[in-house]
Amino acid sequence: MNNQNTTICAMATPPGGAIGIIRISGPEAIEITDRIFTPAGENSKKLGERKGYSLVFGYIKDHEGELIDEVLVSLFRAPHSYTGENSTEISCHGSGYIIQQILQLLIENGCRTARPGEYTQRAFLNGKMDLSQAEAVADLIASSSKMAHRMAMNQMRGSFSRELHQLRDKLLHLTSLLELELDFSDHEDLEFADRTELIETATQTEQLISSLVKSFSLGNAIKNGIPVAIIGETNAGKSTLLNALVGEEKAIVSEIHGTTRDVIEDTVTLDGLLFRFIDTAGIRDTEDRIESLGIERTFQKLSQAEIVIWMIDATCAKEQMEKLSPKIIPACRDKKLIIAYNKSDLLDDFIPTVPENFPSTVKTLAISAKENTNIEQLRKELTTSFTIPETTTSDVIVTNARHYDALSQALAAIRRVLTAFSEHIPSDLVSEELRACINHLSEITGETISPQTTLNNIFKKFCIGK
Amino acid sequence: MNNQNTTICAMATPPGGAIGIIRISGPEAIEITDRIFTPAGENSKKLGERKGYSLVFGYIKDHEGELIDEVLVSLFRAPHSYTGENSTEISCHGSGYIIQQILQLLIENGCRTARPGEYTQRAFLNGKMDLSQAEAVADLIASSSKMAHRMAMNQMRGSFSRELHQLRDKLLHLTSLLELELDFSDHEDLEFADRTELIETATQTEQLISSLVKSFSLGNAIKNGIPVAIIGETNAGKSTLLNALVGEEKAIVSEIHGTTRDVIEDTVTLDGLLFRFIDTAGIRDTEDRIESLGIERTFQKLSQAEIVIWMIDATCAKEQMEKLSPKIIPACRDKKLIIAYNKSDLLDDFIPTVPENFPSTVKTLAISAKENTNIEQLRKELTTSFTIPETTTSDVIVTNARHYDALSQALAAIRRVLTAFSEHIPSDLVSEELRACINHLSEITGETISPQTTLNNIFKKFCIGK
Repeated sequence: MNNQNTTICAMATPPGGAIGIIRISGPEAIEITDRIFTPAGENSKKLGERKGYSLVFGYIKDHEGELIDEVLVSLFRAPHSYTGENSTEISCHGSGYIIQQILQLLIENGCRTARPGEYTQRAFLNGKMDLSQAEAVADLIASSSKMAHRMAMNQMRGSFSRELHQLRDKLLHLTSLLELELDFSDHEDLEFADRTELIETATQTEQLISSLVKSFSLGNAIKNGIPVAIIGETNAGKSTLLNALVGEEKAIVSEIHGTTRDVIEDTVTLDGLLFRFIDTAGIRDTEDRIESLGIERTFQKLSQAEIVIWMIDATCAKEQMEKLSPKIIPACRDKKLIIAYNKSDLLDDFIPTVPENFPSTVKTLAISAKENTNIEQLRKELTTSFTIPETTTSDVIVTNARHYDALSQALAAIRRVLTAFSEHIPSDLVSEELRACINHLSEITGETISPQTTLNNIFKKFCIGK
Repeated sequence: MNNQNTTICAMATPPGGAIGIIRISGPEAIEITDRIFTPAGENSKKLGERKGYSLVFGYIKDHEGELIDEVLVSLFRAPHSYTGENSTEISCHGSGYIIQQILQLLIENGCRTARPGEYTQRAFLNGKMDLSQAEAVADLIASSSKMAHRMAMNQMRGSFSRELHQLRDKLLHLTSLLELELDFSDHEDLEFADRTELIETATQTEQLISSLVKSFSLGNAIKNGIPVAIIGETNAGKSTLLNALVGEEKAIVSEIHGTTRDVIEDTVTLDGLLFRFIDTAGIRDTEDRIESLGIERTFQKLSQAEIVIWMIDATCAKEQMEKLSPKIIPACRDKKLIIAYNKSDLLDDFIPTVPENFPSTVKTLAISAKENTNIEQLRKELTTSFTIPETTTSDVIVTNARHYDALSQALAAIRRVLTAFSEHIPSDLVSEELRACINHLSEITGETISPQTTLNNIFKKFCIGK
């Protein structure tokens, strides 16, 4: 199944556009394309006689010589292609029928349909990129905000891989020092390696891995959207607020995304950050039954949020405040809470204050969702409340659950190393833990593969044609 | 608005695939692309220094130098491009975010967003194709069956245009003969042109135009699907039959179309022909109220069909036959009628017969939709009942309503010419009608444009990026 001796083909663009792209990759890519493609012009050279990075106009005809389409073919020769293999790309008219016909011709001439992610999998197997870079390709295609795009791009360009290699080099150095000692283990009192230095290096490594592990919740929020809950009663104007926050942007986003994806409701990009608004419907029914199940559920949902916007009707702020404060204070302890006094335009000289018993870090704003008052300020509160730490130990943010798992295991291993040092456990056991830590880090780039992880599992999440 | 001095950009593929394509065309296409694109490799040449048909790998960065994507750029120099202008195509990762960012950068650097069809409109304005060829591009992209694809491809490759030019040349020859006479009109009895020959040529032309006009109903059926009505009671097994007819094909079609288009229910490609099944729901309610409105509506819908499949439960064929025959016979007079006796597997030795009073051209079949009996035969009946005449006067099939209108007017004009000849009407009036006929034909290729038709109207039906 993973046979790289086969030549694969797939469409790389959804049909329905002006142009459709079909990719062919593998040992026979150029020969098979030549079989169905006739370059325009007399005495025009076949693809097989051309150099890589050629662009050729011509015709694709079926067995009976009937013209399927006028196309452009891009030619890439190994190793200078995405997969590292001989490859061609056929650019045809974006008709589903034409794409289907060309794919069928390719298959009749010796291609096999590519599995999802198989192009990138081949790029990995041919050493064009490591596993974490390959995974970043899928993230890059899925990225829908500036930050998510930047993280995926950095990872694809290898910044995470470089970080991991540095870590590994340090750990390998530690291991070799320890293992050198073992070779002379009959000299019981001999300690080549300065224990203080070893512990210092291991501690540094632990801190680095730990900060990478911690960055995952940030990375996950950036990738899937920073979770924001807007709570308040039905008529508090939640949807008016959402529309006001989004402004013109949503229209642009859905125009671009609308053709192929369902527009995910209440996902909004503000200043390059994706915010995901959690549906907290339910609070509306519980006005006079404060202990009801409905409000319990809302507060359960609240636990997913990083940011909570509490919309209060300014004209009856006191009652609402008294009703909900006892619940909201504990629920929002580790969250960024913004209290938005809505309909404040209906009151003269309304001054928003931090209510009693709330920590002073709570932000308050007098807004009017309807009149668009202070919405810009609320937007700023949202985007600044989620600042990416400028000086983390590492510049890399982990976004992938597989990486997170591997890093968590590496962290556990390095912590066992530190314990072992402090408890003067024999060097051979320490060395084993160090090796385990290194292996877990190497899983991420694919230099070692954990038994649970098969390559196909990683690549099957990709789209076809990539 | 139609200013060709502007450089336009648009995405040419829907986002959501592995690859996204952005097209740039116009006088500054190469310069603007150079502003945002850095070719890979040291001392790599800018696009402006390269030849047409170059393929260059490199980077697109924003104003702050942040990497937007690694891309491939295809370079085309006027007139050797689709539009006939300088053009580039950027092949990037298929992320909506990346495509949006690149488009934004292009616009900031001097591009304007292209209107739907503007690339093809420019190709027309630059003489790369005539109007009927340009229109065929949109048909080609929309084509979903072999026949529709073939018609669009032939039209795009100019077969209709050549036909029209031949017609026009004949008419121009006629006109010049007549107008030569007019120059010598003081010699009253002088008739340069042999009237018999003139009439013969005009008659031939009338036949040609008439056959083109007639071909429109065929062309329309091929393009939008041959309308088939399945009538019968609810439990006659209409949907079982549809599924049986479609077999494996529907899955393949929807797999390809599903990503971007709503699957149009009950449209099926059989042997390269698209069949459109008309919903005739309503007959089910009228079992005992034969004159009811419901059945009237069904028979109204029936009038749209070219083919009618009447599904009769073989186990109670006689009653159903007696009930509906008086209605069906007149309604299907000019249609292909297939009587399918379903559930025939439940009877021993059932022999399908053409019922009384029905014309002998009616086809009868004993089928079982559930058991898949004789479905292949029914499929064959469908595909052979719609044969494209092998030897029409012209090989061209008209598919476009605008062309049909122009041809109908040309036909009226040439018929007035023939009447004029037979009634010995003065040559100057005949010549005027001939000119009118020529003008209507020229509207199709865009050599003349009728006042009602603006170019923008024609091109606005295109997709963006084409």
